[in-house]
Amino acid sequence: MLKTTGNDLYKWACDLFPINRSITGPGVRETLLYIQNLFPALTIHEIPSGTNVFDWTVPDEWSIKSAFIENKKRERIVDFANTNLHVVAYSEPIDEWISYDELDKHLFSLPDQPDAIPYITSFYRRNWGFCLTHNQRLSLDKKTCYHVVINSKLEKGSLTYGELIIPGKSEKEVLLSTYICHPSLGNNEISGIVVTMGLTHWLTGLLDREYTYRILFIPETIGAITYLSKNYREMKDNTIAGFVVTCVGDDRAYSFMPSRTGKTLADKIARFTMENYLSKYDEYSFLERGSDERQYCSPLIDLPVVSVMRSKYGTYPEYHTSLDNLDLICSEGLGGAFDIISKCIEILEINQTYIVTNPCEPQLGKRGLYTLNSNSKVGDTINNLLAYLDGKTDLVDISKIIQADIFVCNETILTLLKYSLIKKNIKD
Amino acid sequence: MLKTTGNDLYKWACDLFPINRSITGPGVRETLLYIQNLFPALTIHEIPSGTNVFDWTVPDEWSIKSAFIENKKRERIVDFANTNLHVVAYSEPIDEWISYDELDKHLFSLPDQPDAIPYITSFYRRNWGFCLTHNQRLSLDKKTCYHVVINSKLEKGSLTYGELIIPGKSEKEVLLSTYICHPSLGNNEISGIVVTMGLTHWLTGLLDREYTYRILFIPETIGAITYLSKNYREMKDNTIAGFVVTCVGDDRAYSFMPSRTGKTLADKIARFTMENYLSKYDEYSFLERGSDERQYCSPLIDLPVVSVMRSKYGTYPEYHTSLDNLDLICSEGLGGAFDIISKCIEILEINQTYIVTNPCEPQLGKRGLYTLNSNSKVGDTINNLLAYLDGKTDLVDISKIIQADIFVCNETILTLLKYSLIKKNIKD
Amino acid sequence: MLKTTGNDLYKWACDLFPINRSITGPGVRETLLYIQNLFPALTIHEIPSGTNVFDWTVPDEWSIKSAFIENKKRERIVDFANTNLHVVAYSEPIDEWISYDELDKHLFSLPDQPDAIPYITSFYRRNWGFCLTHNQRLSLDKKTCYHVVINSKLEKGSLTYGELIIPGKSEKEVLLSTYICHPSLGNNEISGIVVTMGLTHWLTGLLDREYTYRILFIPETIGAITYLSKNYREMKDNTIAGFVVTCVGDDRAYSFMPSRTGKTLADKIARFTMENYLSKYDEYSFLERGSDERQYCSPLIDLPVVSVMRSKYGTYPEYHTSLDNLDLICSEGLGGAFDIISKCIEILEINQTYIVTNPCEPQLGKRGLYTLNSNSKVGDTINNLLAYLDGKTDLVDISKIIQADIFVCNETILTLLKYSLIKKNIKD
Repeated sequence: MLKTTGNDLYKWACDLFPINRSITGPGVRETLLYIQNLFPALTIHEIPSGTNVFDWTVPDEWSIKSAFIENKKRERIVDFANTNLHVVAYSEPIDEWISYDELDKHLFSLPDQPDAIPYITSFYRRNWGFCLTHNQRLSLDKKTCYHVVINSKLEKGSLTYGELIIPGKSEKEVLLSTYICHPSLGNNEISGIVVTMGLTHWLTGLLDREYTYRILFIPETIGAITYLSKNYREMKDNTIAGFVVTCVGDDRAYSFMPSRTGKTLADKIARFTMENYLSKYDEYSFLERGSDERQYCSPLIDLPVVSVMRSKYGTYPEYHTSLDNLDLICSEGLGGAFDIISKCIEILEINQTYIVTNPCEPQLGKRGLYTLNSNSKVGDTINNLLAYLDGKTDLVDISKIIQADIFVCNETILTLLKYSLIKKNIKD
Repeated sequence: MLKTTGNDLYKWACDLFPINRSITGPGVRETLLYIQNLFPALTIHEIPSGTNVFDWTVPDEWSIKSAFIENKKRERIVDFANTNLHVVAYSEPIDEWISYDELDKHLFSLPDQPDAIPYITSFYRRNWGFCLTHNQRLSLDKKTCYHVVINSKLEKGSLTYGELIIPGKSEKEVLLSTYICHPSLGNNEISGIVVTMGLTHWLTGLLDREYTYRILFIPETIGAITYLSKNYREMKDNTIAGFVVTCVGDDRAYSFMPSRTGKTLADKIARFTMENYLSKYDEYSFLERGSDERQYCSPLIDLPVVSVMRSKYGTYPEYHTSLDNLDLICSEGLGGAFDIISKCIEILEINQTYIVTNPCEPQLGKRGLYTLNSNSKVGDTINNLLAYLDGKTDLVDISKIIQADIFVCNETILTLLKYSLIKKNIKD
Repeated sequence: MLKTTGNDLYKWACDLFPINRSITGPGVRETLLYIQNLFPALTIHEIPSGTNVFDWTVPDEWSIKSAFIENKKRERIVDFANTNLHVVAYSEPIDEWISYDELDKHLFSLPDQPDAIPYITSFYRRNWGFCLTHNQRLSLDKKTCYHVVINSKLEKGSLTYGELIIPGKSEKEVLLSTYICHPSLGNNEISGIVVTMGLTHWLTGLLDREYTYRILFIPETIGAITYLSKNYREMKDNTIAGFVVTCVGDDRAYSFMPSRTGKTLADKIARFTMENYLSKYDEYSFLERGSDERQYCSPLIDLPVVSVMRSKYGTYPEYHTSLDNLDLICSEGLGGAFDIISKCIEILEINQTYIVTNPCEPQLGKRGLYTLNSNSKVGDTINNLLAYLDGKTDLVDISKIIQADIFVCNETILTLLKYSLIKKNIKD
């Protein structure tokens, strides 16, 4: 197993952060090519604008070369070259001198966070706009006019996403999905991409994978809808668990977004893992959802998808502003998220169902497995496993019942398999 | 929808209170004719004495013209003309001079409530008797004899009940049952009749009724048994919920009698309604049952029937005495009961199951339904409904899950239906 | 019904205590002959050494005539004649003079309980050894040598057990299993044998037994495995509940060992009985199991077997030492255990399912069963039974629902059966 460190993840984050991503366009492609360079098995798909995907239509492709607001002295007061958050995503092109009052209708700032630039989009309603700090906005001269330039294009093109399948012994599969549609944002974008890359690296090196892994780098919402409209049928039957990898970069919290029902295998594994291997985490309600579980868990899709996160979107003050940057995320944050999600996957892999092969207890002594504990208050793991491996109860539940660490249980399982005292039970 | 006010209900109560009802006889017919005059759709049924109804036999019909106890001075000490509670219901005729000691065996009074006349019956054991206040009883001269006259008849006749069917779109039906067999008693008789009349009035005017309503005005116990013996088969398959309307007249409490199992749709709707639209109510145990749920919920009948009440029978001191009169009930009491039971029915009517028509979230924007709330902590009702309308969960449960008022949910449901974003799901 | 008293049980215990039992050999036979003398229906089975029983093999038979350690002065320091705990069970024969250092490797004592002789076995690993008090051990001269004699035999023979079937009206059966393989030990051996004998006596005299009783006197572990390998098939379909009768002799506690799942009929009956008829008891976890429920509840056997005990094995200081003797157990302890286990069986016998024969309530009055309680807050037992006997809910659950003693319920059940107002429902 090749593990990536938090430092590796942070380095990737630094490379990918500056790219101007949106739900379509060159920023998405540049991001995917960076990932493909490291993981050549990644397939990049292009879906033409205008394609019908369930209730939606793939939108026109957006690209932008430059954008700025300048005053009469030709001073650039706001310049897209400084940060790609300055322009409202999907802004139409414009090149005009307009009054302050007219400009003001197209400005977005945060009075409560006067030094932060907000992240604003207008994907499905044609518009243009600039985002700036509230302090910048207050410094504008209200009695003059401004030159507003957005050198963008909105034209037929395609929606781009990346897909990577890592086959396992079983056709049953696990979904990992992250999004690649936000410009320079840290916890709520880049962290998801680089932790998913780390998991891809680790899973590729994982020997004897039980499950097949379907790993997606897609634009949020429209990308998930597009992908599902093309792949839903084969996913429906095979997907046993899935994770939307998002908000996995800071070091302030661990948090959990359950699936819609809260009762899938993904929920069970995630809760078990977080309860046993984190000192603390917050569970949110599905009513507080906000990423692609909105599509994966929708009633007619109904996949078992959850999110295991650090600070959840919408819960931290820097969310969707320029303050959600490379200073907010850190190698400890990214590494901790990688560790807990990879632990979930390890537990998913070993969470099988076994059944004993002998009626009554087997004679452990003749195999040298007898542990002298006739007076111990609680029987040892080997005897307890032999008492509870009934072909119906999975290893997570047995680990809870017999109060033994699941990895210790799994070591004993391997011994019992070696002596043919148990066998794996194929679930219906 | 035509609503009746508490004042209307109280006026009806004043008209009906003085009639001398029993389980059979002219008082029952007079009561039913009063109701039929207001609701001509009411059918009055007569079932002959001697008819076998399950384990029972319809008894002889009882009628009474006058009754009194007079002393040697021909002073009427107790006179049925003053209140029809003075005679034990189903008393045999008598006209004799008897000693005080003999008389005393046939007197009923309440030592703990010396100014109240008890309500006593002897339906299935031939007897006669007088009910009086304990103070009256104490004033009798123990050394003299009394002239006892009960001018009653017990002879072949019939048991009378009223039935009113209000058809709806569905064959599935809701039962409303109240009793018409107690003489002048307020909370524990008249209130049930007039609130059921109010509900009949309101349901008749209700547009687009989903369900059919079966409304019964019947003598308690023998009437319910008689009715069920004739109509049980068609009720069994169609009845989704039912309410015994009883003790709905005073203004001191709200209370709930669950069905035998406590787990029917009627229980669920009643509890949901009372929890959400009353500040306080008491739930009793089925062990404390006492009205026709005894028949409707009996094991081989097993209909989903509950009672949503004001002060429950047996729990208030005036119960089954002359103090349960027109002063005990009031328009606020009757009106509050009408409101909560009609609210139960409204919720029953809208408590349908819907399923979304699109996989993934639909694009609300292109329909002008998009509500800008990307940063709101809890998604709004439209998005939450689209996330949870899975064709299995009914609106009551969804309202609980998404923490939104069920009537607000239903407004949004109507919008989603209009745009074909959901459809009604026919439950199996 | 013939009841045995605690005194009878204690007398049997005194007779059986001194016999040198082990998992095979003459002590087992002597014990079984004593029981057969009282209960001639007991069948004694002999299974030859070397027989394969599931994963195990019936071991050689062990017998011992004498054993001692003597010093150079020919003083017997340790003598099997004093207590048969002095020799490690299944010790090989030896007759040698050996040094203290060599002897010391074969001595077992308890430093924390210096006056207690431990009970030690070596059934499946050939060895020899002596058990003695720690004080005795400390008094040995470390610089001399000792004459060690164990006059034992380990040779082909058989494993012996006793089986007694008491037929009932139904093929469905109840298992009682106790063990006969420990030498002179009180609470953890003899108590189980004599309480099982008491139950046998009582069951034989019980009129109209509903169930068949399978009563086993077997060596622990290997005996249970041997018995199951021969009888499992017929037990599997018919056994509705079972009790391992163990640790039923002292008067310090009542305790309960559930089955593996904790959800069988045996668990339900035992918990109901202990909750209702004991002031206090401790429920242990199946993780603290230690007797033949290890075999009966193993996944591929999965019989509904529990233990209703006094002080549980492994929880009291005298356990598996010479202090677990006839002073530790007493007639009150044995009698209390007999009472609670026989109460479990009585409740199991009456815990049937009934269904009413009439739709609606029957007319009790015409049968003289009417109890005047129209004003009582909680209906009486007869009405409540008629309301809840739905053919699905068993008497234990109904007794809980209607808050009435199950034996009082059963008296009323007999009345209702007499009047054909209910009938027994045959469960699927």
